[in-house]
Amino acid sequence: MKRREFVKKAGLGTTLGVIGATALSAPVVAQSKKKVTIVSTWPRDFPGIGTASQRLAARITEVSDGALTTEYFAAGERVGPFDCFDEVASGNSQAYMGAEAYWGGKHPAYFYFAFMPFGMTNTEWNAWIKFNGGQDLWDEVSSSFGLKAFACGGAGTQAGGWFNKEINSSDDLKGLKMRYPGLGGKIMSKLGATTVSLPAGQINEALTAGTIDAAEFVGPYNDYFMKFYESAKYYYTGGMQEPGGGLSMAFNASWWGSLTNWEKSVIEACIEAENARSFEENMAFNGKYLKKLVDEHGVKVREFSDDTWDEFGIAAKEVFEELRGHSDLVRKIDDSFQTNLREIGTSLARFEGVFLNQRNRVLGITT
Amino acid sequence: MKRREFVKKAGLGTTLGVIGATALSAPVVAQSKKKVTIVSTWPRDFPGIGTASQRLAARITEVSDGALTTEYFAAGERVGPFDCFDEVASGNSQAYMGAEAYWGGKHPAYFYFAFMPFGMTNTEWNAWIKFNGGQDLWDEVSSSFGLKAFACGGAGTQAGGWFNKEINSSDDLKGLKMRYPGLGGKIMSKLGATTVSLPAGQINEALTAGTIDAAEFVGPYNDYFMKFYESAKYYYTGGMQEPGGGLSMAFNASWWGSLTNWEKSVIEACIEAENARSFEENMAFNGKYLKKLVDEHGVKVREFSDDTWDEFGIAAKEVFEELRGHSDLVRKIDDSFQTNLREIGTSLARFEGVFLNQRNRVLGITT
Repeated sequence: MKRREFVKKAGLGTTLGVIGATALSAPVVAQSKKKVTIVSTWPRDFPGIGTASQRLAARITEVSDGALTTEYFAAGERVGPFDCFDEVASGNSQAYMGAEAYWGGKHPAYFYFAFMPFGMTNTEWNAWIKFNGGQDLWDEVSSSFGLKAFACGGAGTQAGGWFNKEINSSDDLKGLKMRYPGLGGKIMSKLGATTVSLPAGQINEALTAGTIDAAEFVGPYNDYFMKFYESAKYYYTGGMQEPGGGLSMAFNASWWGSLTNWEKSVIEACIEAENARSFEENMAFNGKYLKKLVDEHGVKVREFSDDTWDEFGIAAKEVFEELRGHSDLVRKIDDSFQTNLREIGTSLARFEGVFLNQRNRVLGITT
Repeated sequence: MKRREFVKKAGLGTTLGVIGATALSAPVVAQSKKKVTIVSTWPRDFPGIGTASQRLAARITEVSDGALTTEYFAAGERVGPFDCFDEVASGNSQAYMGAEAYWGGKHPAYFYFAFMPFGMTNTEWNAWIKFNGGQDLWDEVSSSFGLKAFACGGAGTQAGGWFNKEINSSDDLKGLKMRYPGLGGKIMSKLGATTVSLPAGQINEALTAGTIDAAEFVGPYNDYFMKFYESAKYYYTGGMQEPGGGLSMAFNASWWGSLTNWEKSVIEACIEAENARSFEENMAFNGKYLKKLVDEHGVKVREFSDDTWDEFGIAAKEVFEELRGHSDLVRKIDDSFQTNLREIGTSLARFEGVFLNQRNRVLGITT
C-alpha cells in the first residue's frame, strides 16, 4: 500500500469527527512507519564491508523518510553470523546482510551469488545479475527458502593472500598450511595445500606462531589493519578464490511481498546505490593501502606464475563439475554463469582491460 | 523542509477548524509536490545513454512517491543539446543530463568530470569522485556556474573506432580523415590525422561515401545499431579517447539548495543507483553485441599496437600540459586526477586486472 493510499484507507476524511486535533498534528507519514530488523554477518564497524552495511541500513531509513525505520544488528548482537539465514527465513527478523556463499550448505547454488573462484569480477557479476538473467536465477534459489535477495556490495578481486615464502610454481603450494576458506580452499587442497578455517581475529596469531604458513583475507584496504605483514612478507595480488561478485541483502519473502511498490522502490534504490558505493570505496582505498603496505612495511607484492594459474584452472574446473552434479537447478545456473562470464569477460578484457594495460604500460604505472 | 515538517507547519493540528474534510481526504504528501524539469543532451530512446537517463528521471518520481515529479525533455524537445547548461544555470529548468566534456568551452576543468583521454576507467573515476576528493573539486567548478553536478552514468571504455584499413603503426593514422570529437580528436590530430565533427546520424553516410576513413562512436552495444560495419570492417577495441569516467546530472544550485534533506537523499540514491546500472547495462550488452558484430557481419576486431599507444601517450601528455596551463584550479584538479589515476590504477591492474588476464588466458577466452 502506498502511503498516500494508507492515508486514504485510514479514512481521515470520512472519520474526521472521531479523530482529535492531537492525533492529526502528529506526522501523518509516521502512522505507516514500519520497523525493519536487519541482522548481519559482519562485525560492527568492520572497515569496508561492515561500515557499508551499516550505511545501507541508515540510508533506507533516510530515503524512506522514516517510513521504513531500520534497526541494524551486527554479527552476534542479535544472532550469530551464521544464524542470519534462519533468522530471516523464519520471519523473526526482516532482513540479513551477508555473503550468499555462507549458505552453500543449504544449497550449492548459493555459491554463484557471492564470490565464485575462477568466476566473475564485480563488474561482470553485476552485469549478469541485473541484465542477463542472474537475478531471476537467484530468485529461484532464494524463493525456495522464503527469501528475496539483492546484490548490496563488493570488495573487488581479493588478494591471493599472505605467504611466508615466495610461491614460484604450484609445487611451492604443496604441504603449506593456509587459512583459505570456502571453495577457494577446496582448490588449494586439490593443489596439495592443507587448509584450515580460522576466524579473522586469530589469523595473525596463527601466522606469527607458525601454525599456518599463509592466509587469504580480503584486499589491501582491509588487510592493512590486520597486520599480517608482521609475519608474512609476500603479498600475492588478485587471487582465484574470490575474484569479485558481491555481498547480499535478503528479505523475508512474505514481508517483502507485503511492502508497497513505493517502499520496494526505496529499498531497491538504496541497495543499488550502496552496492556500487561499497565496491568503489574498496577501489578508492586499495590503491592507497597497497602503497602504504609497500612503503611503510616493506611488503613484497607478487603475482602467481602462469603455471600456478593453470593448476588453479584445472582444479576450479573440477569444482564446477562437482557443483553441476548436484541438480538441474545448479546446471542451469552454471550454464548461464559460464556463458556470461565468457561474453562479458571478452568485452571487458578487450575494452577496459586493453586500455588499462596499455595506459599503465605507457605511463610506467607498476603492474 | 521534510514532508513531515511540512505537515506540521501547514498547521493541520491548530487550524483544524478551517480545513474541510475534502482537503484532508486528499493525499497529504502530494501537497508538497515539486515539479522538476529535466533537459537532456541525449536523443529520446537512444539505446543505453538515452534510455538510462529517461529511467533515472522516472525513478526520481517513483522513489519520492511523486513529491518530486520529473518531466524529461530529450535533446531538442525543449532546448538544443548544447543549450542545456545555460538553461539550467539560468534556472529556467531544474536539471540537465549530459556529459561535462560538452562544457569544456565554458571551463576546461569540465573535461576532468566526463571522459578524459588517457584518463580513468569508469571504476577508477567513480572511486576518485566519491571517496578521494573528486566530488569536492567538481563542486568547485560547478558552483562557479550556479550548478551542482553528480555522476549519473557511464558507457565504459569506448572503442578505438571503425577503420576502413588496418592500423599497424601510428604512421598509418597520418592523413586519415576521421570523426573523432573532443580531446581525443586533438590527440589524433597531433598524430597527423584530420578530424572532423559529425553528428551521429551522418557518420555512416560519410563512411560509405568515403569522405571519412574512420570514426569513433561508443562501444559494441551502441555501435552495432549504427551499421558502421557496412563500410569499415576493422573495429579497434578499447581506445584512448574515452576510457571511462561518466555522464552527469546537474541541478540549478539555488533550486538544489532549496530542497529538503529528504528530497536530496532521494535524488542522490536514484542517481547513484542509475550511475551503476547504466555502466552495468553497457557491460552486459557489449559482450553480446561484440559477438554479433563478428559472427553476423564479419567485423575484424583489432587492438592498436604498442607503438601507437606510445604515440597516444606522448600526445596526451601535451594535452594535459595545455590544460594545466589554463589556471590554478585546473592544475589542482589535474594533480588530484593524476595521483588517483596512478594509485587506483595500480591496485585495479594488480587485482581485477591480473585476475581477468589470467582467467581469460587459462579458459581460452579471446583477449
